[in-house]
Amino acid sequence: MQKAILLSDSELSLRLQKVTAAMQSAALEAILLSDNASKYYITGRVFAGYVYITASGQLTCFIQRPVELDGPRVIYIRKPEDVPSHVAAPKSLGFEVNTTCWATVERLHALFPDTPVGNASAVMMHARSTKTPAELSLIRESGIRQEAVYRRIPSLYREGMTDLEFQIEIERASRLEGCLGQFRISGDSMELFMGSIIAGDNADAPSPYDFAMGGAGLHPSLPVGADGSIIKPGMTVMVDVNGNYTGYMTDMTRVFALGQISDHALKAHECSIRIHRALTRAGALGTPASRLYEIAVEIATEAGLERYFMGHRQHAKFIGHGLGIEINELPVIAPRSRDVITPGQVIALEPKFVIPGVGAVGIENTYYITPEGHWECLTNAPEEIIRL
Amino acid sequence: MQKAILLSDSELSLRLQKVTAAMQSAALEAILLSDNASKYYITGRVFAGYVYITASGQLTCFIQRPVELDGPRVIYIRKPEDVPSHVAAPKSLGFEVNTTCWATVERLHALFPDTPVGNASAVMMHARSTKTPAELSLIRESGIRQEAVYRRIPSLYREGMTDLEFQIEIERASRLEGCLGQFRISGDSMELFMGSIIAGDNADAPSPYDFAMGGAGLHPSLPVGADGSIIKPGMTVMVDVNGNYTGYMTDMTRVFALGQISDHALKAHECSIRIHRALTRAGALGTPASRLYEIAVEIATEAGLERYFMGHRQHAKFIGHGLGIEINELPVIAPRSRDVITPGQVIALEPKFVIPGVGAVGIENTYYITPEGHWECLTNAPEEIIRL
Repeated sequence: MQKAILLSDSELSLRLQKVTAAMQSAALEAILLSDNASKYYITGRVFAGYVYITASGQLTCFIQRPVELDGPRVIYIRKPEDVPSHVAAPKSLGFEVNTTCWATVERLHALFPDTPVGNASAVMMHARSTKTPAELSLIRESGIRQEAVYRRIPSLYREGMTDLEFQIEIERASRLEGCLGQFRISGDSMELFMGSIIAGDNADAPSPYDFAMGGAGLHPSLPVGADGSIIKPGMTVMVDVNGNYTGYMTDMTRVFALGQISDHALKAHECSIRIHRALTRAGALGTPASRLYEIAVEIATEAGLERYFMGHRQHAKFIGHGLGIEINELPVIAPRSRDVITPGQVIALEPKFVIPGVGAVGIENTYYITPEGHWECLTNAPEEIIRL
Repeated sequence: MQKAILLSDSELSLRLQKVTAAMQSAALEAILLSDNASKYYITGRVFAGYVYITASGQLTCFIQRPVELDGPRVIYIRKPEDVPSHVAAPKSLGFEVNTTCWATVERLHALFPDTPVGNASAVMMHARSTKTPAELSLIRESGIRQEAVYRRIPSLYREGMTDLEFQIEIERASRLEGCLGQFRISGDSMELFMGSIIAGDNADAPSPYDFAMGGAGLHPSLPVGADGSIIKPGMTVMVDVNGNYTGYMTDMTRVFALGQISDHALKAHECSIRIHRALTRAGALGTPASRLYEIAVEIATEAGLERYFMGHRQHAKFIGHGLGIEINELPVIAPRSRDVITPGQVIALEPKFVIPGVGAVGIENTYYITPEGHWECLTNAPEEIIRL
């Protein structure tokens, strides 16, 4: 039996409402969804095919595979060219132009050649940027399970391990706890397998990807994360692994260390925690995300740590991001972000430092923005540097 | 230090030759590559940015991240709009329209608005469809390591395990052997984490993805593979896990079983092996891939097994595929394929059966097509059903 289930009627209609409100703001009469993450969001299942939504709230699933799915709004098609006979030509139509390849969007656009190409990616990003109560409970559950794994991490370390060997045991513990493995990233430029464990100076290896931390990786085909270094006294080990336990992710980073690490590194770690406290206090409803970025930089600068903030040889240009089905949702906590803090957002903050000769320090937590604008932490493992 | 390395000059010029030959056939004066797999193919490294190639064989890397890469053909840019000042406007220009999102291709096209959008995806797919000796040696190495893992699989089984628990131990063994984890699939419609382990009737759960076998999966967000069933006597367990050990993959499937399985299922497994032998004999240079598909169906039909061939409730419409950096390269062994067998191709054949009440049977091997047209097997674990 397919375990794929439809959303409850009330959850479906809540999500549809959010999507159609965003469509109305974007002046789109219809959208045609092709991205797995969007299809999962709006139907509760993944299939090969398309979802057509009108601004009046009518949703139709056009399914190619798998066989035998049913539901009130399901139409089986052989190819996208079968879609137009089932819907009236809209006056304006959005496609997922930020995630679907050019050739597919052109093919879909040819179904309704008289309408210009509208941007359904922006609509879906906006709708998904605030979470429903049902989504929040899935994210909460991921946080609880991820915390359970993080608390077991010290017991997984054995003397003489490389960063990779340590990572493999953390991966296994995550999977046994129910981690689904798949690490969903919107768009096609970033690649990561199950997260990254970065020991010592490997934290300073610049990465091609838009992640907060780098790492040289094990192979030129995947230059990120663990590089096979042996974990040695005086090094930190930053653990930032996949929190997808429910189809919705949490994102948590903690730091472990072997032996004594330098006061300089300890001070930077405390600065990261201080930034968390400051941002969650400053981030009232309506606060610009760009302002939170500035505050973080101010605190790092005051502490004399700006050279090490968000990297050392290479600096990341954001300190936090929304997340949910994918790891890179809205809002973006970055200098030129136009997002503002809004109830229902789920935001990972990750003010981190790279200290040459020691490694990466700082923590990452995932927060839920409550209706009152409080930042509720969903990733509650101990925040101090834990001795291995 | 970045471990990312440039290709040797001779390997780079061999690959460039293949790409420029394909560009000339496609009448493209230049291509602008944006896909990680293509950038890795043509430069030996992954970076944020673009690769510009002219049909005369001039290659330029336009790099945004990481910092500090060097090389004779490297130009740092801040944004794609910086590219045109470094190159002459070409008369025709290809973009990676099958893998790069619509918005990015449109943005890149706007750099040279007077040239029509050409298809660089087809160029790269064609060039990559036959492997260089250096690529072959990486694929060979993946095959050797994957085989070592598969030989250890029976020792990883413990009585009472679920398919998922078994999978987690196989994942760990693969990672300890050097598997990089990342499972590269061209395009954005298929998702899979480290491959699939499918026990018993879960093999008959239809999947939304274009994989040969389905499986309900553990969660509606990822409906493929293991579903948490306990492995029981009389069931088969089909193991098809990630063979990416070198940035180049092999693809191998083997079947394990607890206790005695039905003669019907054994017969189907033997039929799969017979299909392998027949196709590798029939697949001389110049043979249409579609003809190999027909032969496979003929053999399954003669054996009275066509109802179970490539699935039961849902049938896959191919029995093999090229592979290399990604799991879905050319040629495709399918009814309407226009590919022909050519020296240097690397092809996975996977004639499989789903037997209700038992599970999936059949094997998958990866073959290299030698200059003489022999099919050399690169995945040499024992082919019979192995008792757990």
